[in-house]
Amino acid sequence: MSSFDLSRRLVAEGLGTALLVATVVGSGIMATSLTEDTALALLGNTLATGAILVVLITILGPISGAHFNPAVSLVFALSRNLPRRDLVGYVAAQVAGGILGTIAAHLMFDHPILEWSTKVRTGPAQWFSEWVATFGLAATILAGIRFEQKSVPWLVGLYITAAYWFTASTSFANPAVAVARSLTDTFSGIRPADLPGFISAELVGAVSALLLTTWLLRPANPMRIKS
Amino acid sequence: MSSFDLSRRLVAEGLGTALLVATVVGSGIMATSLTEDTALALLGNTLATGAILVVLITILGPISGAHFNPAVSLVFALSRNLPRRDLVGYVAAQVAGGILGTIAAHLMFDHPILEWSTKVRTGPAQWFSEWVATFGLAATILAGIRFEQKSVPWLVGLYITAAYWFTASTSFANPAVAVARSLTDTFSGIRPADLPGFISAELVGAVSALLLTTWLLRPANPMRIKS
Amino acid sequence: MSSFDLSRRLVAEGLGTALLVATVVGSGIMATSLTEDTALALLGNTLATGAILVVLITILGPISGAHFNPAVSLVFALSRNLPRRDLVGYVAAQVAGGILGTIAAHLMFDHPILEWSTKVRTGPAQWFSEWVATFGLAATILAGIRFEQKSVPWLVGLYITAAYWFTASTSFANPAVAVARSLTDTFSGIRPADLPGFISAELVGAVSALLLTTWLLRPANPMRIKS
Amino acid sequence: MSSFDLSRRLVAEGLGTALLVATVVGSGIMATSLTEDTALALLGNTLATGAILVVLITILGPISGAHFNPAVSLVFALSRNLPRRDLVGYVAAQVAGGILGTIAAHLMFDHPILEWSTKVRTGPAQWFSEWVATFGLAATILAGIRFEQKSVPWLVGLYITAAYWFTASTSFANPAVAVARSLTDTFSGIRPADLPGFISAELVGAVSALLLTTWLLRPANPMRIKS
Repeated sequence: MSSFDLSRRLVAEGLGTALLVATVVGSGIMATSLTEDTALALLGNTLATGAILVVLITILGPISGAHFNPAVSLVFALSRNLPRRDLVGYVAAQVAGGILGTIAAHLMFDHPILEWSTKVRTGPAQWFSEWVATFGLAATILAGIRFEQKSVPWLVGLYITAAYWFTASTSFANPAVAVARSLTDTFSGIRPADLPGFISAELVGAVSALLLTTWLLRPANPMRIKS
Repeated sequence: MSSFDLSRRLVAEGLGTALLVATVVGSGIMATSLTEDTALALLGNTLATGAILVVLITILGPISGAHFNPAVSLVFALSRNLPRRDLVGYVAAQVAGGILGTIAAHLMFDHPILEWSTKVRTGPAQWFSEWVATFGLAATILAGIRFEQKSVPWLVGLYITAAYWFTASTSFANPAVAVARSLTDTFSGIRPADLPGFISAELVGAVSALLLTTWLLRPANPMRIKS
Repeated sequence: MSSFDLSRRLVAEGLGTALLVATVVGSGIMATSLTEDTALALLGNTLATGAILVVLITILGPISGAHFNPAVSLVFALSRNLPRRDLVGYVAAQVAGGILGTIAAHLMFDHPILEWSTKVRTGPAQWFSEWVATFGLAATILAGIRFEQKSVPWLVGLYITAAYWFTASTSFANPAVAVARSLTDTFSGIRPADLPGFISAELVGAVSALLLTTWLLRPANPMRIKS
Repeated sequence: MSSFDLSRRLVAEGLGTALLVATVVGSGIMATSLTEDTALALLGNTLATGAILVVLITILGPISGAHFNPAVSLVFALSRNLPRRDLVGYVAAQVAGGILGTIAAHLMFDHPILEWSTKVRTGPAQWFSEWVATFGLAATILAGIRFEQKSVPWLVGLYITAAYWFTASTSFANPAVAVARSLTDTFSGIRPADLPGFISAELVGAVSALLLTTWLLRPANPMRIKS
């Protein structure tokens, strides 16, 4: 799809995931340093994350597709929108980039470089939240590409803006970002022990969306297919 | 209008209404769990609802029209933009989807599956608010389709963002969503006994908008009609 | 410019100004009823006003131009974008619509139908604020029409979003809205005695912008003129 | 690139930087006068700044390029998108405009015309923040122009919205704005003694982005080059 060579596509995935995580972690630290009202902290966190997603997907999408998310790359590999041989590289770049993003946020806010999070996020309600969050994200991307490709950066930014508030887990919806967030003991952190539950729910959610949208979005009528 | 078969259109209406209600109810629960300031809670509720509306109408509009709202479907059936034989199915899918949305929000936030709301919302000022809210929503949709079809998802998201604040009822403007919100005893709930007043005002508001816009938007000059 | 007949253009101006004022006044009442933090109240007021402006200008602009503002109509009449014989009608429709908007907000929030505001807004800093606010608004509209007509609804909504915060007067920038706001003794009110100062500053600000942009935007090079 | 004569381009740079700084400084004063919650103050500051950037870049971009920022002008001069002989004029107009913006904000809020800021912003974490902030801003602009020129006003507004929260310095990212902010002893100020550290980090950040994007964005395949 992209005609950029693999090395630049991987740099784009890594850079984008780094900036995304730096935004998630950094804005969480900023917000909690300024207020004691948790809703207000989440609001600052939400605005920053939604806004940077629109930017990053717009400017890096033409290079790598701007997944920044192993669950999204998996769905694209399954649906043959990403060459399957590139999947491992994409995921590695996303995880490495995400960790760099946590480091960058910590350097900016004068924290230890990396630290284990102690924030508990577990249990069926949290897992179901992550399933819903990632199902919705993947469905948004898959339907968005089908009907309104140019709007996908906006759709993703707006979807995450909403999902930070309507899911009980504040919508991680991204295994690479979840790993990176396990390395900060701040507002946006997650205890490493809780990663398997989150990541499993996310991957199942993304694949569920692929199954549903494959049926729902199949061209209804050959006359309507767009080239 | 859509060439998708009826079963997929009904799934799209149900899924969209479910995600809309999950957002309205879920973000209300999230917000009130994080702050004691009601304006801040309404702000979180507003942002999430406005954002998800843009997403859902963009990705499901090409399938079903993305009404998610019996008052909108009624207006479209009256103006022959929805085949009248589909109206009952649309409304049933919307109501069923809405209830599923409340259930999903409750599961995510570890609440009882369903519960009766005890939130009182009644009296002439509330009913007038719902009339204004739904009049404005239907007028936005009808004029938006006439002049700027591609922007309708944004127009609806922005209209509801404003209406959450400028109406005393926080703008339900949707009978299916009102029914679903009667089944949660949280921030966004409404006492079942108050549904008839809300739903009546909403339906009259939508039809009022249809009457006004039919006159206001009639092509002014045959030369200006767009194909 | 518009091929809609005058009666419908005046209804569009009146309806749009009514909904704009209902939003300004209504969201102010809502916000102050929910919080004691004035910044948060202004935030709710800002979001609602910015959002409804995008909607109203998009859906009514093709009919009447969507001025909703005598200062804007004056500038358009001076620059021959509005037939001068229509100016009085436009201003009358805007003022009447604005007052209806205050009445609608009061009915929704169970206030007296109309009341005199007691909110003091006067003095050189306030007048300079209104001059800046209306200068910026008119410059945004005039340059927006010149370079990016389709974006004008967004530009106006975003400009007012900013101006609510960067001017000391919270940017009325609109004589018809100022009159309507003198009739509510709530968050967004203005004492009737303070209207002349505000309205004068607004009209001078708008004309200043016309003078500047006439020079600044004159086509630089005949080859670049767009039809 | 622009066919507007230099005098109007410089007026556009000066006017745009003035309105940008008036917004940054004015909204900071407004916010802190209304609330004691610093996160809420930053939120008002963020919304106003992000919104005005979209407006100013849209309406002045076709005239001067709408840099409003010496770091951006430097990058454009280095990449031959700005004639190098214009660089000094651009920077002078930006600095002068910025100071006028501080004066305008102070007049609107009844402050002394100019005053030295006493707000300490120094140290490696702050400098790294400014490096990240300006690196991201320049990368956003350079990649945005390459892939999606029409969206650049939105990309910049959204990027700054995020960067106000994810950097520890609240993202000045602009030497001219930094100078102007050293002349206000309010929310958005910076001690004059801290300017060299900020400005150096900003310039290095912008040039770093130019180096990276030159490699990253080089057309991947001659067939894909857009005219």
